Amino acid sequence: MANLDAVEILDTTLRDGAQGQGISFSARDKLAVARALDELGVAWIEAGNPGSNPKDMDFFRQAAGLALQNAKLCAFGSTRKKGVAAKDDAQLRSLLEAGTEAAVIFGKSWDLHVTEVLRVSLEENLAMIAETVAFLRERGRRVFYDAEHFFDGWLANPGYALASLKAALDSGAERIVLCDTNGGSFPDTIGAGVAAAVQSSGGAAPVGIHAHNDGGCAVANTILAVKAGCRHVQGTLVGFGERCGNAALAAAIPGIELKLGLPCLPEGRLRLISNITWQVAEIANVAVSDDMPYVGANAFAHKAGMHADGILKLRRSFEHIDPVSVGNERHFVMSEAGGRSAIAERAKKIEPSITKDHPAAASLAEKLKTLEAGGWQFEGADASFELLVRRELGRYKPLFRIEAYRVVSEHPTSEALACSHAWAKVWVDGQYEIAAAEGDGPVNALDGALRRALKHFYPELEQVRLSDYKVRVIDGTAATAARVRVLIESTDGRGSWSTVGVSEDIIDASRVALVDSIEYKLIGDIERRFKAYL
Amino acid sequence: MANLDAVEILDTTLRDGAQGQGISFSARDKLAVARALDELGVAWIEAGNPGSNPKDMDFFRQAAGLALQNAKLCAFGSTRKKGVAAKDDAQLRSLLEAGTEAAVIFGKSWDLHVTEVLRVSLEENLAMIAETVAFLRERGRRVFYDAEHFFDGWLANPGYALASLKAALDSGAERIVLCDTNGGSFPDTIGAGVAAAVQSSGGAAPVGIHAHNDGGCAVANTILAVKAGCRHVQGTLVGFGERCGNAALAAAIPGIELKLGLPCLPEGRLRLISNITWQVAEIANVAVSDDMPYVGANAFAHKAGMHADGILKLRRSFEHIDPVSVGNERHFVMSEAGGRSAIAERAKKIEPSITKDHPAAASLAEKLKTLEAGGWQFEGADASFELLVRRELGRYKPLFRIEAYRVVSEHPTSEALACSHAWAKVWVDGQYEIAAAEGDGPVNALDGALRRALKHFYPELEQVRLSDYKVRVIDGTAATAARVRVLIESTDGRGSWSTVGVSEDIIDASRVALVDSIEYKLIGDIERRFKAYL
Repeated sequence: MANLDAVEILDTTLRDGAQGQGISFSARDKLAVARALDELGVAWIEAGNPGSNPKDMDFFRQAAGLALQNAKLCAFGSTRKKGVAAKDDAQLRSLLEAGTEAAVIFGKSWDLHVTEVLRVSLEENLAMIAETVAFLRERGRRVFYDAEHFFDGWLANPGYALASLKAALDSGAERIVLCDTNGGSFPDTIGAGVAAAVQSSGGAAPVGIHAHNDGGCAVANTILAVKAGCRHVQGTLVGFGERCGNAALAAAIPGIELKLGLPCLPEGRLRLISNITWQVAEIANVAVSDDMPYVGANAFAHKAGMHADGILKLRRSFEHIDPVSVGNERHFVMSEAGGRSAIAERAKKIEPSITKDHPAAASLAEKLKTLEAGGWQFEGADASFELLVRRELGRYKPLFRIEAYRVVSEHPTSEALACSHAWAKVWVDGQYEIAAAEGDGPVNALDGALRRALKHFYPELEQVRLSDYKVRVIDGTAATAARVRVLIESTDGRGSWSTVGVSEDIIDASRVALVDSIEYKLIGDIERRFKAYL
Repeated sequence: MANLDAVEILDTTLRDGAQGQGISFSARDKLAVARALDELGVAWIEAGNPGSNPKDMDFFRQAAGLALQNAKLCAFGSTRKKGVAAKDDAQLRSLLEAGTEAAVIFGKSWDLHVTEVLRVSLEENLAMIAETVAFLRERGRRVFYDAEHFFDGWLANPGYALASLKAALDSGAERIVLCDTNGGSFPDTIGAGVAAAVQSSGGAAPVGIHAHNDGGCAVANTILAVKAGCRHVQGTLVGFGERCGNAALAAAIPGIELKLGLPCLPEGRLRLISNITWQVAEIANVAVSDDMPYVGANAFAHKAGMHADGILKLRRSFEHIDPVSVGNERHFVMSEAGGRSAIAERAKKIEPSITKDHPAAASLAEKLKTLEAGGWQFEGADASFELLVRRELGRYKPLFRIEAYRVVSEHPTSEALACSHAWAKVWVDGQYEIAAAEGDGPVNALDGALRRALKHFYPELEQVRLSDYKVRVIDGTAATAARVRVLIESTDGRGSWSTVGVSEDIIDASRVALVDSIEYKLIGDIERRFKAYL
């Protein structure tokens, strides 16, 4: 019955993911997440708990028009209330009203929970499971059974934990999903528990895994569960969820596909996983951490010179998988320690003929060394590094100049003006323009004044905004004053880029990074237009 | 020889952690990290690679004065160069010059790396390992051997991988550390590889694990390695490091201590792990993610009503460990109850009679909650927290007031003035004073003007200077503007203290932190004088 050569994915971003602190989806957000997950190609999208949340019910009504290609929706709920017949349970009626092909029902597998939290007899709990599954089956629903706290229950009372699975199976559940609800189990326990459940179910239905990350093992637990026989995996793509989150599918799926050789997504979709993870995170308004396995911005970033050198000799010497397979990119972090091969690799983007023996690679290495001694650092500032390469290769012409600026912060503020205000005068190709702005802080004000003046010549700067701003104080030697390094991330809605500035003055360091940011945007636009023209 | 009832911890935040993108420690930061790790009680601090980085060598010179209580420092380096005698290898000489009790040496265990990357014969590689270990042993160093790529090597050519360990052991290495350098191994492979190494070493030396997180399994791999016999664990406290980072010790140590029952830290120190993880992250200027296992702000936050209800009936029904054991707190989202005991603990410094049931503990908890929602954080700002407690207890009287200030940054600079200058007018006890200063940047200028004006009344401010300044942009929700949090460290030559300010304007946030810094200094001096008078 179960397809043993593939793993079925159920994404619960919209249900368990929504339990993450700070996560709050609008109906519009939910539709966007469902579309993104469908494009990735997961089999099931658990989209809400209609019995406990009226907004979730609204979503299921709207979702009818989604026209999904790969995924099907399912709704989540619990076994019937104690002492109430299934047909009289309002929560189960809501579940039917959601109108999904499948319903996911959770019930108790840990005897402690049955007697101490639910406060019913062990027999009554089994009846609650069986009757709930049967009720939904009779009304045409496919039923997946989530065995809450399965692993804790199996350690405490294995016979009862397995009996709870049997109650669901015998009533027609099509999936038996083992949940590590408190998230503290280790992979060896998970493997043993899965093996016991697979054996006891005798192949009657695929066994699934639902892991939480409280012990830091959610992905590993998911992987070892699959190795032990699970063919259904639940998690959230980005990994957010209650407390420490759910198993991050963006980390689990590539491991299962690339290392266990079991497909989870339709052919060719794994390459979308980096991009779609970023999309879903964006909708949820959370950051994909830079060091997230497989899909993070730094997942394939090499900083140590010896690693960069090894990679260039033999890719797999320092890479566990090919970043292309998950739609991510290899990346050599630009630092003095990174060495000439890494510098040449990066400079190729500007000039394909550069190798590590090219004179420009040597002069760039020399320049980087001097700059780094002065507190510069290009590892988080790719756009500034590109501009540096352009300048070194003579492929650069300034597009504007700041003639003068003044930034004022004061307290108390005058009634007519924000506490920071600035003016800037710029020169572009023989013409001058002066503009002023006020802002939340001095950098914000200077940025505003600068861009207002430049927009006169470059209207495309309208779309650019600062998305991140970081400051770091660099220890000077005893003799020199402390310097600050400013890192700016900018975006124009289509892409984002990072620039750096260093100075003893935070405003001046910010100005340098702002100028790089604007130049990078303008040069990129010019080149794009030029290529389109060819 | 090895203590089988405990696990030795080696933290490599200052070496492998420094390979994380965006991580850059000043010499001062490194000393602060070393002190924090020592307080936590790790056995070893791997503090740098003196042969490849001259700045690391400077650190080892300065570190002599650290007076660590629990930890010892070790330096990291590689086996000798091919074709060069150990005594003629400059990198090994640097390692000796670092003057640490132990040296950590990495060498090749994967035959592919030996022939394709290092490009020497398999025999020459074994000689490089043996001669390097022997060279350092003869010169009185204890040697830990890091077997790079051990698990990939063991799968490819188990005999050779184990032979590389034997070469190190036979020459006197005291620890054999198995590295999953590319970070893509799964826990079952790790467990099997460790078992093979433990068996083959025959108990001659403790076996260690060094895991990376490229497959999302670093913590699980570390745990299963310990289960398979490792008694030495390497990682970085917060988890940052090259690419996807190292095993996060803040997640691995609680798992090993609380679930495997093997102590890693001195008695009673596990409760410091949340606080010290936040400290180290703050020094590195990275965020501890809210959902980080054990130590994250949300690690024990319950959002689902059913979970909160379960917890109130029976703690372990929805919690895998007691949050108190790791110095963290349970937290009910929307039904705030948490934090009082921790707050009381910290407020005792000002007023010893405060317990968690004191009304001040409740009002402080309420105040902290509001402030934290607005982006404040007192983890790295003890002096500001003390002032907050004083204000709450009514044991506070403002010593001065800033009536007005103005800060200007401009370009080009006039000949007579630095590019940032400021004036400030202060009120002290009915008298006014105005003063001006110029500076390297706007904060420096404002600080100068403020202190000049106040020195008129409080000459002891002459000795105070800013020793560190950090800025963090706090993500606002889409609706609100981004705010910045400024952390300032000040010193008067006798001690140092940290203060915090939050505002949408960086100058204003700096002003708040500066005012706290000056008040803290003045109050401290007054109390000291008063006590001396008694």
